[in-house]
Amino acid sequence: MVKMKKSIASYALASILCLAGSAGAMAQDKTAEAAKTERYKPNNELIVAIEPANGQNPAEVELGKKLFFDPRLSRSGFISCNSCHNLGMGGSDNLPTSIGHNWQEGPINSPTVLNSSLNFVQFWDGRAANLREQAGGPIANPLEMASSHDLVVNILESIPQYKEEFKQVYGTDSITIDEVTKALAVFEETLVTPNAPFDRWLKGDENAINDQELRGYLTFKNSGCVACHNGANAGGTSFQKMGVIEPYVTDNESAGRAGVTGKDVDRMMFKVPTLRNVELTYPYFHDGAANTLAEAVNIMGRLQLGRKFADNEIEDIVAFLKTLTGDQPRFEMPILPPSSDLTPRAKPFE
Amino acid sequence: MVKMKKSIASYALASILCLAGSAGAMAQDKTAEAAKTERYKPNNELIVAIEPANGQNPAEVELGKKLFFDPRLSRSGFISCNSCHNLGMGGSDNLPTSIGHNWQEGPINSPTVLNSSLNFVQFWDGRAANLREQAGGPIANPLEMASSHDLVVNILESIPQYKEEFKQVYGTDSITIDEVTKALAVFEETLVTPNAPFDRWLKGDENAINDQELRGYLTFKNSGCVACHNGANAGGTSFQKMGVIEPYVTDNESAGRAGVTGKDVDRMMFKVPTLRNVELTYPYFHDGAANTLAEAVNIMGRLQLGRKFADNEIEDIVAFLKTLTGDQPRFEMPILPPSSDLTPRAKPFE
Repeated sequence: MVKMKKSIASYALASILCLAGSAGAMAQDKTAEAAKTERYKPNNELIVAIEPANGQNPAEVELGKKLFFDPRLSRSGFISCNSCHNLGMGGSDNLPTSIGHNWQEGPINSPTVLNSSLNFVQFWDGRAANLREQAGGPIANPLEMASSHDLVVNILESIPQYKEEFKQVYGTDSITIDEVTKALAVFEETLVTPNAPFDRWLKGDENAINDQELRGYLTFKNSGCVACHNGANAGGTSFQKMGVIEPYVTDNESAGRAGVTGKDVDRMMFKVPTLRNVELTYPYFHDGAANTLAEAVNIMGRLQLGRKFADNEIEDIVAFLKTLTGDQPRFEMPILPPSSDLTPRAKPFE
Repeated sequence: MVKMKKSIASYALASILCLAGSAGAMAQDKTAEAAKTERYKPNNELIVAIEPANGQNPAEVELGKKLFFDPRLSRSGFISCNSCHNLGMGGSDNLPTSIGHNWQEGPINSPTVLNSSLNFVQFWDGRAANLREQAGGPIANPLEMASSHDLVVNILESIPQYKEEFKQVYGTDSITIDEVTKALAVFEETLVTPNAPFDRWLKGDENAINDQELRGYLTFKNSGCVACHNGANAGGTSFQKMGVIEPYVTDNESAGRAGVTGKDVDRMMFKVPTLRNVELTYPYFHDGAANTLAEAVNIMGRLQLGRKFADNEIEDIVAFLKTLTGDQPRFEMPILPPSSDLTPRAKPFE
């Protein structure tokens, strides 16, 4: 709405100047030009541009993609990686917390898989060092896919086309869970989202973001958000406490990093989430309690920085955050290798 | 296994003939040629080839594809059309019966969406006349997606990119459920699988199916299977009783067509399922009780035809059935339009 009003106002102004003749129009052009040259330009920013993925073995990526979409990795035969990290929905499920086996309510908001290779550790509590280590977790977690590594390997071993593809990629005769998680991780490495407007601006395209978005970025930066949301992923570089200045009030009391370290001081410490594609990954926070970006920015300002952002500052920051939406991964939906007569069948209701 | 042994035998025979010199090789060629010319050729077969989809409006197809993959059409925000009609898995879920909202056990095996436009009616009990009528059903079925048409329209209305796409396709200012089901149906019309080996054979390519597959087809045809499994979809042209000669014993007593007509005579009457891509759509029957094609063929022979197929006949028929696997739909996975701040959020656990 705000944007619409502004553009109507600009249109009216332009019309008036137009009526004033070409000299007036030229004067406006020069003013606009001058305004532009005064705009802030990138100068060693703490957020850096995302580069396209490269170097992955295409056959391994294709295998990992199939596994990512294959619900046979779950006990029910119904839940795949893509169920909670939906690549059509910003790599998340857009639910407060995820739905697991038997419709169990998950403990935490599903983090996006997009650009996850850029995080320094995996999971909200950082309990996995990398994507390979992460990938094995949900498969065997009774609250999530509720299968076991042995069952998954048995299932894959019984499927001739998978056998052949694993052999082609890894050169081995029997499939191992390490190969499964490696293929998944390599596919996930390709799920980066370069070419966001903000990245184009970082690389020198002044017009890639508009005045409001730039203002939003400068407010974001100068008020200290960037101290945690930095690096290529605008996050994912450190653990921080949720609720630094004010405590975070939630129905979802999570141990956070303390669940890994056992130290009380790590309670409510989480890996700082990425802000990449944050426009697509609502709702926000580890408990999914914030439905909108405006709400999330307001709460973050108060709790982490002790700062009450004005409404217009919030609008500006939200406009900036939307410039972090990059090119979404585009690929052909994989056709999964069919089970054989020997493949253990899913029994979702037992 | 059987196939492997045969090819080893042929290889041995060919080697011997080779050793016998070029005259011997020529003699073999001629014998093979003679054998081929004696093979049965298509002659007004009751199964007809599938033609590629055409005539659909590409923008409407794209819109329908997004809706097909969009879990916001369900109350939980977790289940999309693709959850139970997975286009990477033969258009079905490969489960005995489907998982619905809150992990409810569905009453019936999910029929494939592939080639469903070729069925004379939709659903196992034929309660929908066409795909448009079908598409509205699962959205509002409390056992399936458990949403309502009003809620779905409200959600879509709140999403700017959907608003724009509906307007572009239908030229109207507000989205209706009829437009939603029409877009879904038009997308589904594109999900045909032409170019199966059997279709290529029907069209004159003698080598498209091998001797065993042809033998299987002739057994299938001559023992009467084709009386019901006919037309472009090798099924989907009539209702038939499950258990004609012998009654079908099942834990899943379904009213079948009687649920629609209210007539006791229609109990256990079902739309004959398609055999297209049947290799991919296990498990079989309305209750998903048959895990393998061999099991299904054996049971069908006894119950519907009063015929006990020999093991080699079953192997042949299964080999033929696998020639009905056509080109699976290939398309880029859609990126879904993001919700706005006004979009009603899913509350899967309430």
